[in-house]
Amino acid sequence: MTQQVLAYAALDSKSPLVPFKFEQRRSRPDDVIIDIEYCGVCHSDLHQARNDWGFSRYPIVPGHEVIGRVKSIGSAVTKYKVGDLVGIGCMVDSCRTCSACHDGLEQYCEQGNTGTYGSLDRHDQSVTYGGYSQTIICSQDFVLKVPENLDTQAVAPLLCAGITTWSPLRHWNVGPESKVAVVGLGGLGHMAIKLAHALGADVTLFTRSPSKEQDARDLGADRIVLSTDEQQMKAAKNQFDLIIDTVPYDHDLKPYIPTLALNGTIVLVGYLGEISANSVPMIMGRKSIAGSLIGGIQETQELLDFCGEHNIVSDVEIINMQNINEAYERMLKSDVKYRFVIDMQSLKNA
Amino acid sequence: MTQQVLAYAALDSKSPLVPFKFEQRRSRPDDVIIDIEYCGVCHSDLHQARNDWGFSRYPIVPGHEVIGRVKSIGSAVTKYKVGDLVGIGCMVDSCRTCSACHDGLEQYCEQGNTGTYGSLDRHDQSVTYGGYSQTIICSQDFVLKVPENLDTQAVAPLLCAGITTWSPLRHWNVGPESKVAVVGLGGLGHMAIKLAHALGADVTLFTRSPSKEQDARDLGADRIVLSTDEQQMKAAKNQFDLIIDTVPYDHDLKPYIPTLALNGTIVLVGYLGEISANSVPMIMGRKSIAGSLIGGIQETQELLDFCGEHNIVSDVEIINMQNINEAYERMLKSDVKYRFVIDMQSLKNA
Repeated sequence: MTQQVLAYAALDSKSPLVPFKFEQRRSRPDDVIIDIEYCGVCHSDLHQARNDWGFSRYPIVPGHEVIGRVKSIGSAVTKYKVGDLVGIGCMVDSCRTCSACHDGLEQYCEQGNTGTYGSLDRHDQSVTYGGYSQTIICSQDFVLKVPENLDTQAVAPLLCAGITTWSPLRHWNVGPESKVAVVGLGGLGHMAIKLAHALGADVTLFTRSPSKEQDARDLGADRIVLSTDEQQMKAAKNQFDLIIDTVPYDHDLKPYIPTLALNGTIVLVGYLGEISANSVPMIMGRKSIAGSLIGGIQETQELLDFCGEHNIVSDVEIINMQNINEAYERMLKSDVKYRFVIDMQSLKNA
Repeated sequence: MTQQVLAYAALDSKSPLVPFKFEQRRSRPDDVIIDIEYCGVCHSDLHQARNDWGFSRYPIVPGHEVIGRVKSIGSAVTKYKVGDLVGIGCMVDSCRTCSACHDGLEQYCEQGNTGTYGSLDRHDQSVTYGGYSQTIICSQDFVLKVPENLDTQAVAPLLCAGITTWSPLRHWNVGPESKVAVVGLGGLGHMAIKLAHALGADVTLFTRSPSKEQDARDLGADRIVLSTDEQQMKAAKNQFDLIIDTVPYDHDLKPYIPTLALNGTIVLVGYLGEISANSVPMIMGRKSIAGSLIGGIQETQELLDFCGEHNIVSDVEIINMQNINEAYERMLKSDVKYRFVIDMQSLKNA
């Protein structure tokens, strides 16, 4: 038995998103079906809808910051029961047998993970559809438990923006002794500040606009450094154990590398493309440039639990499903503090 | 009391090296004076002699792979006695108080280490003169103990080429489970192969010439991969935990990054300048590009002890001091297997 589901989809790379109905794939014993309540809007939703990366598979139902309640469970499901508050992030499956999967690093699955939308299901080859939808279906192993104490509508972005910054913070052992800097104050950047601060680190925001200082401080930053001010950049030399660079477009890394401390790392989490740097400050201080992709399932659960304990959510602007195309345009102008979240109740009026 | 010392020096950036006499700086209680027996010839000697980096201070007496026997000791010297076989590498001093120095990372001293040649002594501001010389003077704390069982004339390159590759092998925890690749088969590259092999790692040489296979195997490599062969590069994807890139000139890093394993690092030890890469494979496998500079004093002693236990030395071609200018020309053509070492006895005939 399959079920017709109402969603919003991009039908090609040029048109705005429109209402769209699809057949949910046949459910399997380990599946959980979720009634979606909220879905965050990630920059990559826009990239995929518009085929910016060249591998989009239309129609696309975007959305990989999914929050909802369990509607039904398969016969083999043990981890969740109907009514549980749960989430789905960027992946709905992986090979589960490679060494990356064994290490809880499903995002780096050697066979490639199954993306929440626009991927092919590993079992029946159906196309996966994301969270701009009434319901979603997913193996229990890729479903996350969401703390009930958090503001539900602001939790969704933890599942991509949150974990994408949490994973490097944890991998590079950020704690109370650490000095962390963040480049870019958007969906990812504002989560990086909140999480690094909650981990006890000293947090700096690199920004080009002095006007962001108060916002940065409100989020938990200890200071801003104006990346356009040579004096400030000079004074910031050899400071940071970890710089989380969330900028999603081509930008110059060279000014940031000298601000890394001995053994420091600048980790790129937002930009896919060509980078350039100068090896001299890298060699002179054993400094690294690294990349990092979202996070594993166990690590995402750890993040949600941590956020539950520390009462951390994203700063969000709630929109209706019908306003998604306008939201995309505003996102392109960075006109959002700091993440759009779709109230999926609005879909009923589609 | 100072002493006149015979050496070879570059008097300016254009002229060949010539015999040169200088006054040794006044000795201090913690100083060791060494009769130099052998001195390795490093690529950076040539760069400095010719002012390729723009900060040369003439006259320059190059040489920072120095082996000899203790000739005399100051009143406070406790670590060495007259006649001991000792070495000096790239540094003769550092601030000794910063956190890098405290951690045994004098090469990254926050005040800058004192280079073995062409630096200013921290106490009397005299210029430091290197190992192309009869004798050298140095605080006991920057003198290394050299195992007597090793072939003395082939030990010298351990003090720069050796430690420069040893330090990243140790920092990135290379052991019997590791897969290591080396780019460039010169002074540094051949030591990287020997040391990685001795640490139990599986070792691959990236090279453009199939003719290097036997040499690479003789040094301890398990295989070569032709970097010009697309099929071979493709087959090498996601393999290496650590790539030590010893190439001293501008070259393309892009082909190597996909060959890194999940969490792998390519570390640059030979090239100072602009680099470029693509962030996609870095993000998709949490891969890093790093730099590394020689090694600390304690780590250099560890290397010498390890080489003593495993009977590892450099492959060298012994030259006379008088042939240094010809050696530089051959080095520029990579016509050396794998390191020139000057027999300093020859200086007496200068």
